[in-house]
Amino acid sequence: MTDTVSAGMVVIGDEILSGRTKDKNIGHLADMLTAVGIDLREVRIVADDEDAIVEAINALRNRLDYVFTTGGIGPTHDDITADAVAKAFGVPIGYEDRAYKMLEADYAKRDLPFTEARKRMARLPEGAEHIDNPVSLAPGFSVGNVHVMAGVPKIFQAMLDNVLPKLRTGTKLKSETIHCPFGEGTIGGPLGEIQKAHPDTIIGSYPKYEDGKFWTELVVRARDPEVLSAAADAVRAMLDDLRTRG
Amino acid sequence: MTDTVSAGMVVIGDEILSGRTKDKNIGHLADMLTAVGIDLREVRIVADDEDAIVEAINALRNRLDYVFTTGGIGPTHDDITADAVAKAFGVPIGYEDRAYKMLEADYAKRDLPFTEARKRMARLPEGAEHIDNPVSLAPGFSVGNVHVMAGVPKIFQAMLDNVLPKLRTGTKLKSETIHCPFGEGTIGGPLGEIQKAHPDTIIGSYPKYEDGKFWTELVVRARDPEVLSAAADAVRAMLDDLRTRG
Repeated sequence: MTDTVSAGMVVIGDEILSGRTKDKNIGHLADMLTAVGIDLREVRIVADDEDAIVEAINALRNRLDYVFTTGGIGPTHDDITADAVAKAFGVPIGYEDRAYKMLEADYAKRDLPFTEARKRMARLPEGAEHIDNPVSLAPGFSVGNVHVMAGVPKIFQAMLDNVLPKLRTGTKLKSETIHCPFGEGTIGGPLGEIQKAHPDTIIGSYPKYEDGKFWTELVVRARDPEVLSAAADAVRAMLDDLRTRG
Repeated sequence: MTDTVSAGMVVIGDEILSGRTKDKNIGHLADMLTAVGIDLREVRIVADDEDAIVEAINALRNRLDYVFTTGGIGPTHDDITADAVAKAFGVPIGYEDRAYKMLEADYAKRDLPFTEARKRMARLPEGAEHIDNPVSLAPGFSVGNVHVMAGVPKIFQAMLDNVLPKLRTGTKLKSETIHCPFGEGTIGGPLGEIQKAHPDTIIGSYPKYEDGKFWTELVVRARDPEVLSAAADAVRAMLDDLRTRG
């Protein structure tokens, strides 16, 4: 018995689309989800624009088990993710009591004014559950199957560590990586035949170009270890055959 | 007079979604488009799945001036981008004469068989124009406003260099970057007022977290230099005011 759990990601921020900031969160989420057996199926990077955020969240949350967002939950005018999530779910948004009191007490302790901007970080869609932020306190939140987190990588990573243990996970996709000294043009035909003969595997072929030469990284993936071994053996036999032929 | 030109990107590949490969093309495209005055509005990363690729390309090409794709144009069974593009445009696909002859001659010269797999790289949607590939010959291609390029960064970058000069570009967004020693909670309120007072600018606020302290990078963007200066002056005046108050 194998079980699949699917996910999508929405990266929110003009600074990624302008190239000013290079995203570091997509690769991290991909690694973490793969490790626990959740399949990341689609990522969208959208601007700080309410309609764009709402559209992306609704498209993904309706067809995938989980959606993760990063960015746009700070205290400035361009932080509009919480409002967009409320709109996507059609629920009201306002100061949430626990977040408000927590932030109010923290700023008082640090002798900083609890400005309107800082209060924005206590605005959550109705029914949202906190995602704890051990770095800088202002929480992320979950509404339904959507998990809303910060864009600053260190905070995103800490929030994700708090979310992942609460999620349903699937059977992990196991993989075997096989180094192939030939370019894709040499192996493409027989590799396609192996994929057809092993339909319960995903055989990936990743061309690498170094020092003027192509080589290929082949990755065989399957949820069932025996199915995986059989396909990986077939790939290795194909490569041995090609080497023998020279 | 200012003019905007918009673009989207579709990154195709299971290996990005699994985390195995970390994308390097999004940031490069974002930088290059910003430099020539094309606004990247949305990026989607999708799996090696025909329906997913078709949906993403059609969604973006119908509402943006240009779409750029990376990945899935090699010779193996998981390289299905050309077929997906043909399906998205509703045009037939088959061997294209010029690409076929070019590849055939090249493999003959290198004493390599022109396998079925290699022939796949000559399959182009009807009406496609080549995007030259100075690295490994097999061309990318353009159909309508969609520009289809390789996923290997070195080849993608070379293809993009060949495509960009052919495109219509807009008035470049000029920007001023202002270092702000305060966290977003301090500046959020007044910064929002400045944004409201300067509606033809985009004022971005990017929180940075280092050594246990927040600071903020403020970026003011506008197409008109005078509009830009006025807003940037207002931001600097706000920071001076905050420094004076201590």
